[in-house]
Amino acid sequence: MRKGKTINEIEIGDEASFSKTIFEADIVLFGAITGDFNPMHFNEEYAKTTPFKTRIAHGGIAGSLIAPVLGMMLPGLGTIALETKTRYLAPVKPGDTITATGKVVSKDIGRNTVVMELTWKNQKDKLVMSGEATVMPPRA
Amino acid sequence: MRKGKTINEIEIGDEASFSKTIFEADIVLFGAITGDFNPMHFNEEYAKTTPFKTRIAHGGIAGSLIAPVLGMMLPGLGTIALETKTRYLAPVKPGDTITATGKVVSKDIGRNTVVMELTWKNQKDKLVMSGEATVMPPRA
Amino acid sequence: MRKGKTINEIEIGDEASFSKTIFEADIVLFGAITGDFNPMHFNEEYAKTTPFKTRIAHGGIAGSLIAPVLGMMLPGLGTIALETKTRYLAPVKPGDTITATGKVVSKDIGRNTVVMELTWKNQKDKLVMSGEATVMPPRA
Amino acid sequence: MRKGKTINEIEIGDEASFSKTIFEADIVLFGAITGDFNPMHFNEEYAKTTPFKTRIAHGGIAGSLIAPVLGMMLPGLGTIALETKTRYLAPVKPGDTITATGKVVSKDIGRNTVVMELTWKNQKDKLVMSGEATVMPPRA
Repeated sequence: MRKGKTINEIEIGDEASFSKTIFEADIVLFGAITGDFNPMHFNEEYAKTTPFKTRIAHGGIAGSLIAPVLGMMLPGLGTIALETKTRYLAPVKPGDTITATGKVVSKDIGRNTVVMELTWKNQKDKLVMSGEATVMPPRA
Repeated sequence: MRKGKTINEIEIGDEASFSKTIFEADIVLFGAITGDFNPMHFNEEYAKTTPFKTRIAHGGIAGSLIAPVLGMMLPGLGTIALETKTRYLAPVKPGDTITATGKVVSKDIGRNTVVMELTWKNQKDKLVMSGEATVMPPRA
Repeated sequence: MRKGKTINEIEIGDEASFSKTIFEADIVLFGAITGDFNPMHFNEEYAKTTPFKTRIAHGGIAGSLIAPVLGMMLPGLGTIALETKTRYLAPVKPGDTITATGKVVSKDIGRNTVVMELTWKNQKDKLVMSGEATVMPPRA
Repeated sequence: MRKGKTINEIEIGDEASFSKTIFEADIVLFGAITGDFNPMHFNEEYAKTTPFKTRIAHGGIAGSLIAPVLGMMLPGLGTIALETKTRYLAPVKPGDTITATGKVVSKDIGRNTVVMELTWKNQKDKLVMSGEATVMPPRA
């Protein structure tokens, strides 16, 4: 299988993205995996009483779309995530199509670590989440 | 439904936990939700060639076990997550039982925000992940 | 459990069908099983740019509806599939109800094999897929 | 998103593969999608009485691993499958790791079609399925 990029192959400014629509089924399955049955995700009647006025997707669903970016694209196969930071800026709703993007902002060749700026935008190009990841690319 | 704790009801040192076993099915379903088909999660033969020697669970599965803690226990219903930070310290394997814990370390009554220290331990009490969350508890 | 029909019990022209609606959740789960996260199945925004103008279901979802026909109806329990051929004629969309039908067109008693003509129609009676299967019915 | 290869970019002999372990959860979910609850997949006691002596995976699970190859690798995004043919040669069991490979054997530039030879091998390099696919690569 094709190994990801090593730290020497990675350049500041490199970026990669993954996009996917968030389905009702994703919310159901995320509940199954995590036990997070918060009524703001699972109870339409309750959701009408919240500031969002409708059910919203778990933040972790959109958040996790960065995983295929880091682990399968940039740096790619063999990457180990050390730390991630995520800010939640706007709600993600069922039916939204989210694009998760990682962009290299610095690298430390001695420690073999790369810092990437993360953004998550919806189909209207609205920034719904932002963050940073520190990862170790695969070694040569 | 019972609203979560307001900032005045929350005290420094309060904590809550949620525990769950990570199943093979969780890995399969997390792949469905995120599109993350990294062979370190899905290909036993490839996984044997990695430093972990076996397939490991997506970090986001264990990570997301903190969501029911924050949103359904402490502060609880009506909480909005602003920011989370997660450090990945040791691999989580299928069959591991993970306990995610949030503990209040500070609160800002003016801004209505609470900072919580997060830990994730496995069934052997090994710390596999750690982090922080900044959340807004529900208002009175 | 009731064994399927043997080759002597099967007659040319015998047929059996299975019908099922294709749900969004089927698409999500089929992605989980197969790793097929093609954006024509998973990304509504991308799908709008394709000739189909909307997301379509994986061909393998409708295609696999023939399996309960062959293995549980005709010939039925104990049948072993040797070969299948499938032609994809029109897209299947989420919400479509597909009827998969197998009809016996020939049998070879010496080799214990049966050839069946396969059709897949949607709720508007439109032929969306067609094909053939060669199967071994259970022995007496 | 990056379009797949056009017919002029494809060369005879080009090949691509996708590998994945077949999990118990895959069998459960494939049953959910297809209604194929044949006891040879779902009933361990019944399965002991069959020639295979154990439950086997639905043929369609391994079969469908070719979909990400054709649709996302070679030719890749924008490919439309016209016809597939599959021969079932040996059983696939839960826990097997299957590699699905497509190799270009001919192309017809006038009709914009490519014929690919398909193979499915398990972790012991045993050929469990073989077949052919005729596909239309994306146009320039």
